[in-house]
Amino acid sequence: MSLLYKNLRVHQVFGANTDVGKTLLTSALVRASASICERVYYLKPVSTGRIEEADDEHIKRYIGVNAERLRASCLYRFSEPLSPHLAVKLEAEKTKTEIAIPSDETFTQALASNIRRSASTAKTYSHMYVETAGGIHSPTLSGTTQVDSYRPLFLPTILIGDSRLGGISSTISAYESLMLRGYIVDSILLFKDEYYRNGEYLAPYFAERGGHVMTFDPPPPRLPDPAENFEVTEKYYQDLVPLSKEGDVFNVLTHLDNCHFQRIQQLDTMPRRTLDTIWWPFVQHGHFKSEQGVNVIDSAWGDFFSVYNSHRRPDSAQPTNSLLEPQFDGSASWWTQALGHANPALTMAAARAAGRYGHVMFPGATHLPALNLAERLVKHGPGKGWASRAFFSDDGSTGMEIALKMALRTFAVKQSPPLDMANRKQLGVLGLKGSYHGDTIGAMDACEEGVYTCEWHNAKGYWFDPPYISIRKGVVHVTLPQSIAAEHPTGEIVLDSLSKAYAVNQRIDSPLASLYRDYIRRTLDRLEASEQPALAALILEPLVMGAGGMIFVDPLFQRILVDTVREGELSKTLPVIFDEVFVGLYRLGIETCGPLLGVNPDISVHAKVLTGGLLPLAITLASDEIFQAFLSDNKTDALLHGHSYTAYPVGCEVANETLKILEKVTNSEQWQSVKQKWATPEDREPAVFSLWDQGFVQATSQLASVKEVMTLGTLLAIKTQDDAGEGYRSNSAQQLLQPMIAAATHELPNAFGMHFRTLGNVAYFITSLNTPPETVRMVEDKIWSALSKAGS
Amino acid sequence: MSLLYKNLRVHQVFGANTDVGKTLLTSALVRASASICERVYYLKPVSTGRIEEADDEHIKRYIGVNAERLRASCLYRFSEPLSPHLAVKLEAEKTKTEIAIPSDETFTQALASNIRRSASTAKTYSHMYVETAGGIHSPTLSGTTQVDSYRPLFLPTILIGDSRLGGISSTISAYESLMLRGYIVDSILLFKDEYYRNGEYLAPYFAERGGHVMTFDPPPPRLPDPAENFEVTEKYYQDLVPLSKEGDVFNVLTHLDNCHFQRIQQLDTMPRRTLDTIWWPFVQHGHFKSEQGVNVIDSAWGDFFSVYNSHRRPDSAQPTNSLLEPQFDGSASWWTQALGHANPALTMAAARAAGRYGHVMFPGATHLPALNLAERLVKHGPGKGWASRAFFSDDGSTGMEIALKMALRTFAVKQSPPLDMANRKQLGVLGLKGSYHGDTIGAMDACEEGVYTCEWHNAKGYWFDPPYISIRKGVVHVTLPQSIAAEHPTGEIVLDSLSKAYAVNQRIDSPLASLYRDYIRRTLDRLEASEQPALAALILEPLVMGAGGMIFVDPLFQRILVDTVREGELSKTLPVIFDEVFVGLYRLGIETCGPLLGVNPDISVHAKVLTGGLLPLAITLASDEIFQAFLSDNKTDALLHGHSYTAYPVGCEVANETLKILEKVTNSEQWQSVKQKWATPEDREPAVFSLWDQGFVQATSQLASVKEVMTLGTLLAIKTQDDAGEGYRSNSAQQLLQPMIAAATHELPNAFGMHFRTLGNVAYFITSLNTPPETVRMVEDKIWSALSKAGS
Repeated sequence: MSLLYKNLRVHQVFGANTDVGKTLLTSALVRASASICERVYYLKPVSTGRIEEADDEHIKRYIGVNAERLRASCLYRFSEPLSPHLAVKLEAEKTKTEIAIPSDETFTQALASNIRRSASTAKTYSHMYVETAGGIHSPTLSGTTQVDSYRPLFLPTILIGDSRLGGISSTISAYESLMLRGYIVDSILLFKDEYYRNGEYLAPYFAERGGHVMTFDPPPPRLPDPAENFEVTEKYYQDLVPLSKEGDVFNVLTHLDNCHFQRIQQLDTMPRRTLDTIWWPFVQHGHFKSEQGVNVIDSAWGDFFSVYNSHRRPDSAQPTNSLLEPQFDGSASWWTQALGHANPALTMAAARAAGRYGHVMFPGATHLPALNLAERLVKHGPGKGWASRAFFSDDGSTGMEIALKMALRTFAVKQSPPLDMANRKQLGVLGLKGSYHGDTIGAMDACEEGVYTCEWHNAKGYWFDPPYISIRKGVVHVTLPQSIAAEHPTGEIVLDSLSKAYAVNQRIDSPLASLYRDYIRRTLDRLEASEQPALAALILEPLVMGAGGMIFVDPLFQRILVDTVREGELSKTLPVIFDEVFVGLYRLGIETCGPLLGVNPDISVHAKVLTGGLLPLAITLASDEIFQAFLSDNKTDALLHGHSYTAYPVGCEVANETLKILEKVTNSEQWQSVKQKWATPEDREPAVFSLWDQGFVQATSQLASVKEVMTLGTLLAIKTQDDAGEGYRSNSAQQLLQPMIAAATHELPNAFGMHFRTLGNVAYFITSLNTPPETVRMVEDKIWSALSKAGS
Repeated sequence: MSLLYKNLRVHQVFGANTDVGKTLLTSALVRASASICERVYYLKPVSTGRIEEADDEHIKRYIGVNAERLRASCLYRFSEPLSPHLAVKLEAEKTKTEIAIPSDETFTQALASNIRRSASTAKTYSHMYVETAGGIHSPTLSGTTQVDSYRPLFLPTILIGDSRLGGISSTISAYESLMLRGYIVDSILLFKDEYYRNGEYLAPYFAERGGHVMTFDPPPPRLPDPAENFEVTEKYYQDLVPLSKEGDVFNVLTHLDNCHFQRIQQLDTMPRRTLDTIWWPFVQHGHFKSEQGVNVIDSAWGDFFSVYNSHRRPDSAQPTNSLLEPQFDGSASWWTQALGHANPALTMAAARAAGRYGHVMFPGATHLPALNLAERLVKHGPGKGWASRAFFSDDGSTGMEIALKMALRTFAVKQSPPLDMANRKQLGVLGLKGSYHGDTIGAMDACEEGVYTCEWHNAKGYWFDPPYISIRKGVVHVTLPQSIAAEHPTGEIVLDSLSKAYAVNQRIDSPLASLYRDYIRRTLDRLEASEQPALAALILEPLVMGAGGMIFVDPLFQRILVDTVREGELSKTLPVIFDEVFVGLYRLGIETCGPLLGVNPDISVHAKVLTGGLLPLAITLASDEIFQAFLSDNKTDALLHGHSYTAYPVGCEVANETLKILEKVTNSEQWQSVKQKWATPEDREPAVFSLWDQGFVQATSQLASVKEVMTLGTLLAIKTQDDAGEGYRSNSAQQLLQPMIAAATHELPNAFGMHFRTLGNVAYFITSLNTPPETVRMVEDKIWSALSKAGS
């Protein structure tokens, strides 16, 4: 929703406090702008109090010289000199009328419309000032404080500082609150005061922090006689904004113009500079022949990026079109987002841990953020009922390497006698074809060889070809791999609903279960008899194999696999690792997969959503049996693995805050009501559900361009028809959905582009856990539109 | 410097602004405390203005009932009603005297002394209130704003909110500024106002954020007649703090007491809870038989942790001793710290990136923090002159895995014809014995087998036993490994100074250089002729091998190694990887090691200091030749490696801020003057230098308990005598230095404990890059004291 125009420099004006001279200094800026621009726009979104006395008066003042050049407007106006959230209520009481209080969304839209309209009429280069009410955190009409309610528009900011006693403090605090929301603060303006000299302190203070400070003579004292008052005020303005167009107000204008142009210039050069210096992960740079493909993210808010479009949209040459457009973050920032971008609660959590600890080293030490997080995950989270320990690391891949080290050691020492080093090196793992556990070489060695693997890859283990669940032409199918299908009468299994497919305990005695069981046992017996290395662990991505192509593995098969490797004598049972990095913590609508599968792991790994989508952190949970395998009096028996920033307080505190908010989100009425939509007459509490609309999913699966569809929780996967069968090398999904990338007509209120990722012929879309249903519907419409056109 | 007492609850009182009723409400709290405690302490560290009129008056007010129970004091008092930083100047001007402005350090010490003294006289449970001046960010005497100048004491906080128009905003902003410094805000108090109703807004606002709000009736209007004024004010206080000891002020007292006791109880349970749930990296939990060993870090500031001591100090049973004591962070939080803990500039950088972006996914995208960081490192940092690309990841280990993938591929495709997959898997690396590149299995495979390696380890390569530099009994030695020593006439090489040892270009034609060259060539020829796998990369930790035992490799040997692997036909030359994760970015006093060695790498890896010691981030830099090896039109040729949080804005922005501050620190007079101390008559600009004192290093190397010592930049390594030769398994250094861990007598102003880490018989100490010289001297004294006692 952020807007930026070549022909219109827009600044919002925030006050460090109320009554600091916001209106006076904004008036001076407007007056100065009017004297050099063809037109100047002044918007006071919410005005309270002193309607006749002050607001109109100050508008009159600059109209005095430039009436024809000024476009002043106000969206909401109340007579009580109160915080807007109270003023609106009092006005309603006094006038005995119902006043519809605009939601933050409505407020943002109204503001954006006004700015768009201004840009469309500002033919040559113009200025616009959006003056907020009261202090930066004064509540707006909805009750949200302004610094948050204005955030979606991400307008560059002028902060009016406080020149009174205590004003150093309120100015710095206000600035810090702006920083916490990521605002670009282009200038800090305040009155001179010979006694308190706040400006003298603040100028070097902010200069050191990259801030720009300018001070101005204070206004004359207010006179009781309106005419006299007008006269001295007019004189004051004339001195401040002289006809010579020189002086500090004009210097500020030049500075603000420079900031504006430099920002645009910076955005303009970013694609080239990026192509010259950055080496992207998972990207063939040979495919980026031009700057057009570079997605320049200027900021982000909620579910949307704000992206620069001038380097790839021909219509951006029009100065009246915004250079920034919203883009739905359809990969949930590559599978990490849980609570929307730039969530203030997560920012605050990061800040308070940074402020209290910075980083503190972890071996032998403890601190509250890490301890609270460990206890929460072990005792009240995914580890509930089976885990005893939490081991911290930096990302899913390192978390999986730790899990592997845990499992291999446990298996090795459990043998009688414990395996020697040579035999330990030969150990392998059992897994599924298509699995993926991160990019470090050890985590890769737990998977088959494939396009992702590197020179040193050495696939250590055996991988079953798994059956998977999908919706084809409106019907829930279990697709069997060739090896199992051969044993099945028809090879074709159809289930009534997703809920039925995921009711694992109800399916555990089905004929298909017997088929799976026999097949798995037979295979394991064959492997044991062969020359294959001993299997030392079972590693699963429960329910969905993500990077392998969003494969929704039949949970019944995974359940039976776990049951089978735990049969027989203890020394032969395999530690079971659940890689829940992608699937855990409500990504699929459920906190953890064990309860659904009906079995718990011995080790599980958690990351991505863990920190709400802000910064990297991973945790490997382990049962006590695993922990005991490393316990002795010998230093070298310990798990000698650790990264410098292990359990860094900032990461842990953000995770704690995330888990707290997740609890609210997943227990919210909204979440419950979405869940209920997936209930069936038999299952009032559906085993699984999705934030995506059931009807949309069904309909999409029927499209000609679509082979099959699947969804759980926040995840929607669409496999497009791909006759060439190129898998990861395929570009079919990318090509089919290409038209969605740019916002159709970005000057319309709800227009937005789409960022999404594909894995070969699979396109997938992931929402945050708190994405509003209306947003999901809008995204569904876009997908539908692209796919149904492609099919026709 | 943080203090916490069982017998004394201390709170600091901050105001959301000036004139919000801070003194009035503090007086009410003092009065209430005096009515229930044997004694109450009131400290106004800095008082400005209204000396007779207000301050004494309000003290009189509560003296009214409890004169004998109150201990009131003021450290600095000025008559001008101004911000303290100006009041002190004006007072000096007016009285024509020189007033020594206390430094922040002095100020903290004075405050701490007062609190210590109070605790020592508070026999039963008492309360103490420390009332600050003005708003939270009002500058104190030194000019530092209060919220920063009080931070070392980390006192729990009462925030007095603002009940006036605009007060919602100033209260929230003030709270956020407190959060940015990590403060524990136990309560927010403000006056009721029937019109503005700020309390009604703030109570639920803060409740949602875990904050406690209480509102109180406002004071009566000030009366002109002092006697009358006293009377109505006294009446007001009597109503607020009734003799019945009931009401909201007493409820606040109960709440504050609960906060205090819960905090102590929490600290008390943390060791046990940690031992029950946490699995530490690199720790044998079998060694932790009791809770005593757990280092409970309550907060951190600058170079010091603030640690809980009650579970391990018998004298902490004394309620008059602080339960928290400072502990020097001698491992620079495990090698990451650069700018001190909880550096506000880094917190702010993290906050502003979180507020602007949250995380945004990186493949195909760009954002300012990542782009600026990449350009800085490639063009103006360690990559200057050779690197063309930056690849982001999460920690040194993942950064090294990426480096390995880069090098192996480059070597493989450079061969003619390019190697097939089978041959690629056989590639090995060349390195040094004792090297260490992180804990993931791939990074480990680039090292020899050892105590750190796991079941799947497969050492892929050849490792030279390197010569190393050390100071033995005051003399700089090069110690040759057996294999090279056999070729040398004496086997004993002594150099004039460290500067001489690191003047690589001056040593390049020495007889020793020839010896190295011949030895390396001969060995490589032998390897090539053998059945060994082909070597595909040279991997070095330049100058110092850290985890391997702080081995200061002879730089001449590393230089010649690089020169040698780059000789001959192009297809045979090896890509050179510098693992600068530990040694880079001024850890050793120099930005990067290439200029000192006189050769640049093809790939380098950077982490740890990169983010100033706040959060994880790594960058792998690569030359254009390396980048080209992955460039094609084929997706599968790309470097298919990436972590979800790759180049996350928060990490990048903190790194950018760190590099900006590092530039200031390393160009500072202090840094230059330290450098000059290591200059020799011949070398005015020493090749290397140390923040540790040369005399101390020399003397330490002469101690009986010490085998050898070495230092560069912030790093000091001390190898203790270890006749058993157990290496990593040895506990000799740990035992020798054990006495330093606890603060000797923690009620003395400068007493502090020491946190340090050992690697077998090597103890090492690392400072931040901006640790004050006085602190380094104090640490040297402690080390000296422990080692010289041990030697006697």
